Amino acid sequence: MWMETKTEVEEASRTHASFSQRIFSGLLLFNGDMEHLDKYMEDKSFVLQLGVWGLRGVSRVILANNPLSGGLILAALYWASPWQGLLGTIGILASTLTAVITGQDRAEVSGGLHGFNGMLVSLLMGVFSSAGDWYWWLLLPVCLGSATCVFLFSGLSSFLDRWDLPAAVFPFNIILILYLLCTGPDNPYFPHHSTTPPGPLEPNATELIALQVIYGIPRGVGQIYACGDLGPALLILGAVFLYSPLLAVHALLGSAVGTLAGLSMAVRHESLYSGLSGFNGALGCMAVGGLFFTFSLRTHLFAIASAFFSAYADIALSNLMGTVGLPACSWAATLVATLMLLLTGSLAAYRIPIGQVRAPECNLRLHSQWEAGNVEERESTDV
Amino acid sequence: MWMETKTEVEEASRTHASFSQRIFSGLLLFNGDMEHLDKYMEDKSFVLQLGVWGLRGVSRVILANNPLSGGLILAALYWASPWQGLLGTIGILASTLTAVITGQDRAEVSGGLHGFNGMLVSLLMGVFSSAGDWYWWLLLPVCLGSATCVFLFSGLSSFLDRWDLPAAVFPFNIILILYLLCTGPDNPYFPHHSTTPPGPLEPNATELIALQVIYGIPRGVGQIYACGDLGPALLILGAVFLYSPLLAVHALLGSAVGTLAGLSMAVRHESLYSGLSGFNGALGCMAVGGLFFTFSLRTHLFAIASAFFSAYADIALSNLMGTVGLPACSWAATLVATLMLLLTGSLAAYRIPIGQVRAPECNLRLHSQWEAGNVEERESTDV
Amino acid sequence: MWMETKTEVEEASRTHASFSQRIFSGLLLFNGDMEHLDKYMEDKSFVLQLGVWGLRGVSRVILANNPLSGGLILAALYWASPWQGLLGTIGILASTLTAVITGQDRAEVSGGLHGFNGMLVSLLMGVFSSAGDWYWWLLLPVCLGSATCVFLFSGLSSFLDRWDLPAAVFPFNIILILYLLCTGPDNPYFPHHSTTPPGPLEPNATELIALQVIYGIPRGVGQIYACGDLGPALLILGAVFLYSPLLAVHALLGSAVGTLAGLSMAVRHESLYSGLSGFNGALGCMAVGGLFFTFSLRTHLFAIASAFFSAYADIALSNLMGTVGLPACSWAATLVATLMLLLTGSLAAYRIPIGQVRAPECNLRLHSQWEAGNVEERESTDV
Repeated sequence: MWMETKTEVEEASRTHASFSQRIFSGLLLFNGDMEHLDKYMEDKSFVLQLGVWGLRGVSRVILANNPLSGGLILAALYWASPWQGLLGTIGILASTLTAVITGQDRAEVSGGLHGFNGMLVSLLMGVFSSAGDWYWWLLLPVCLGSATCVFLFSGLSSFLDRWDLPAAVFPFNIILILYLLCTGPDNPYFPHHSTTPPGPLEPNATELIALQVIYGIPRGVGQIYACGDLGPALLILGAVFLYSPLLAVHALLGSAVGTLAGLSMAVRHESLYSGLSGFNGALGCMAVGGLFFTFSLRTHLFAIASAFFSAYADIALSNLMGTVGLPACSWAATLVATLMLLLTGSLAAYRIPIGQVRAPECNLRLHSQWEAGNVEERESTDV
Repeated sequence: MWMETKTEVEEASRTHASFSQRIFSGLLLFNGDMEHLDKYMEDKSFVLQLGVWGLRGVSRVILANNPLSGGLILAALYWASPWQGLLGTIGILASTLTAVITGQDRAEVSGGLHGFNGMLVSLLMGVFSSAGDWYWWLLLPVCLGSATCVFLFSGLSSFLDRWDLPAAVFPFNIILILYLLCTGPDNPYFPHHSTTPPGPLEPNATELIALQVIYGIPRGVGQIYACGDLGPALLILGAVFLYSPLLAVHALLGSAVGTLAGLSMAVRHESLYSGLSGFNGALGCMAVGGLFFTFSLRTHLFAIASAFFSAYADIALSNLMGTVGLPACSWAATLVATLMLLLTGSLAAYRIPIGQVRAPECNLRLHSQWEAGNVEERESTDV
Repeated sequence: MWMETKTEVEEASRTHASFSQRIFSGLLLFNGDMEHLDKYMEDKSFVLQLGVWGLRGVSRVILANNPLSGGLILAALYWASPWQGLLGTIGILASTLTAVITGQDRAEVSGGLHGFNGMLVSLLMGVFSSAGDWYWWLLLPVCLGSATCVFLFSGLSSFLDRWDLPAAVFPFNIILILYLLCTGPDNPYFPHHSTTPPGPLEPNATELIALQVIYGIPRGVGQIYACGDLGPALLILGAVFLYSPLLAVHALLGSAVGTLAGLSMAVRHESLYSGLSGFNGALGCMAVGGLFFTFSLRTHLFAIASAFFSAYADIALSNLMGTVGLPACSWAATLVATLMLLLTGSLAAYRIPIGQVRAPECNLRLHSQWEAGNVEERESTDV
């Protein structure tokens, strides 16, 4: 009798589980990592596959991995500036194709891992170019730079693999700095703007406009793609929300933290309004809060610490690299995130191995399943 | 008969050994690593324990590990400037507490390993601040900077662990440079002095005062704590002597070598007088001569080479970083000591694994005991 | 019957193989790595052995390993400037002797691995010195700098060994930069020239002379030894040809690629004429094309990519380091070659472990022998 009751309860809970799970997997069709798409794409043509790989690469820039998010982000970039959208598209195709030609690991290529650095390089080359839009010669360094990212990504991955660290956007940061150094400010073929360091504030500065500062927070999320317009930035934020709501919250939070850090160091107002103060904080916050670590209150606090550290380090590096007219790119966030991944102590317990990183919600679910499995196992051994 | 004689001799030598050992361990109560204190402290209150951890951390800066030495050094700092003493105390408490909160390894925390970087950061923030003493807002970056050192120490330790290398004062060097870069020379909240590179000598320089140069040698030991006064510097040297006479000799020797290197490169007189030329040499000399390597004539020669290399590298880095108004901190000594630890060849044979490093005298004793043990073992296998 | 025929054919092919092999080994007496010399030298006096080690070290600079090539190169240096030749000789002896004294691995010392960095340091110290030839005080930093290279080589080898990477010319690059920073431009004892960054082109530049640009290509090979004269540069190229024709072809090709990269970035004409634009490309091309990777069409294409990357990175680093008056040395080629060695994908399949690197022709022969062995083995298992 007791046994039957138990079985009924079990069945009910199973039905409930399977029902909620069915809804969950229904939702998972379009958010999360969309792993089911990979199987579906297997027998499709190379061009279609390349498209999906590219869109995954587009979303990888903002630590997501979802072709739909990638599509939305690409649309946002074309909305902000068609020329920038084109450059980004060319960059991602050039680097993904280079990865195919140089025989990189197929799983990495199809996951978009060889595309996002190339895309960032080409977007930033476009932003820094002072030759104006539709300067077709720029496609030459864009293609070469994007292709070189594959070499750096592959080499750095081998190097960092010893600590189970990702190559992240190190290749982009290196190639962009090399490109800007190589061409110099008054190159006859590829001229580019010089960068102004964010601080300190000029003495005759106008009053700070609070609303503009608040607008700067979502703009900081857009600045990850070097896009400072409010509308496209919100669309990019929406694309992240589609992939993972948790990640989107951390992106906004990190950008706010970065803006706060900028205020505390009295950086130029322009830097706050455009979102340039926020984007390193956003990246630092997203990496720790949910992506590379299982989400929990503790991880959340570490994510905020990481955002502050990224933001301050960004101001420091901007001031340093600004002395030779260079931007700090996302060096700060990349270095801080790498540091957080190396950390020992209580944060390390939440660390997810690089190869098993999924969307934060998925990480959390796997973690709790695994914990539940552990408990069940323990119970069964008790019996 | 012969057997008995041998036994008697053995017993006599054993008695002698135990007697000399008893005196030795009596002396060891207050010098060396004072490991017996750890057991004694186990059941004491957290505040008392924190105090001992902090004092160990204070002495760790100068490569010692002795709470009494730490106390003497802290007294010397308060003697030189109460404000600096206070900053150092706050720095060491902030970083040690952060280590406890973030769940760092307990043995590392109680050994003071998470305190010394925080202390150095706060001391140097105070020295470079141009807002004068008792500028209470400075406590904000002091606490934040000290706390961040724990993150860097933990992350760098994981990274360098592959080569059995210590994180040493890399966290301090990184955080201080980031802080100075972040605030910039004319920050409205946290203004600081710019640094003048040590060389070359200005043409209309006054004659060199030999006595001042000689005074600069012990001052170089004090400069490890950013303290250029002669009296406190001598007290710090005394504290090192209490921990290990061998280390104190190497500290003085290294500082002298650094001064010599400064003379050979015609650096500014101010740099020689204040001991700033000497402190990197002192650190480089101490690390190799007895601490990380068993003391011997060969290690001693390598220690002198390390002191010269550290001193010249410090001049080079000071000139480089001085172009953007930054100090070279102790980058030179830290990098050179790390290099010496990586060295293959005849020096590597004397290398002590990082986890087994004790006071130089203790290292030497353990080494000779181990050698004696080896000989005995060989004899017993002969029989 | 059939069996006999097969045996006859086999015997004939064996005879043919042994005959061609005999000729080949006859040729190998003076080209390739001349490993037979090591056995012959074993019982000779230390001074003679030191001479051979030194000459191997001279050739190691240009990635060769042949005492005869070393002799030819040294002759070329004395031809270009007796003072530079003397400096090079002293540098190589100082660092090789330091390696012997500090107890470095004997195989490394006799292979000349501890000499080439010291030689480069002393050659470049001579080139940058503004005190003129035969300034005997320069021997002091030359000897010290060369000796320090051994420490850096040994330490960096331990560090890079985890990825099976060579320390290459990192020690030279580090020591030279430290020396130039340490002495500064107007040091009273060791003054030196400041460096002009290669680009961008001054507006009132004269027309480019095509012939001079072409002469710049072999000069680029000579610039690996900081020697810009055409005659000695051709002799150096001949010495490389003696070691390995394949390597010599890649050296010229790489230098041409570097010149092309310089043209595309509109660098100063002087930089193209003197070969300074070409030498990083040459080194990057040689390292990948045949030396660290088995030669094949694919490796050849990667070698050209590596040459382009090295050349552009050199322009970038020259512009960066030129802002503080420093030369970029061979940082670019060394970093790019290190990156190529870390690469995964189709290039990694051709990678030769560092310990088994021989002359490109020898690598190729060993590879095909090994493949033939594999085929034979597979055939025998088929039977």
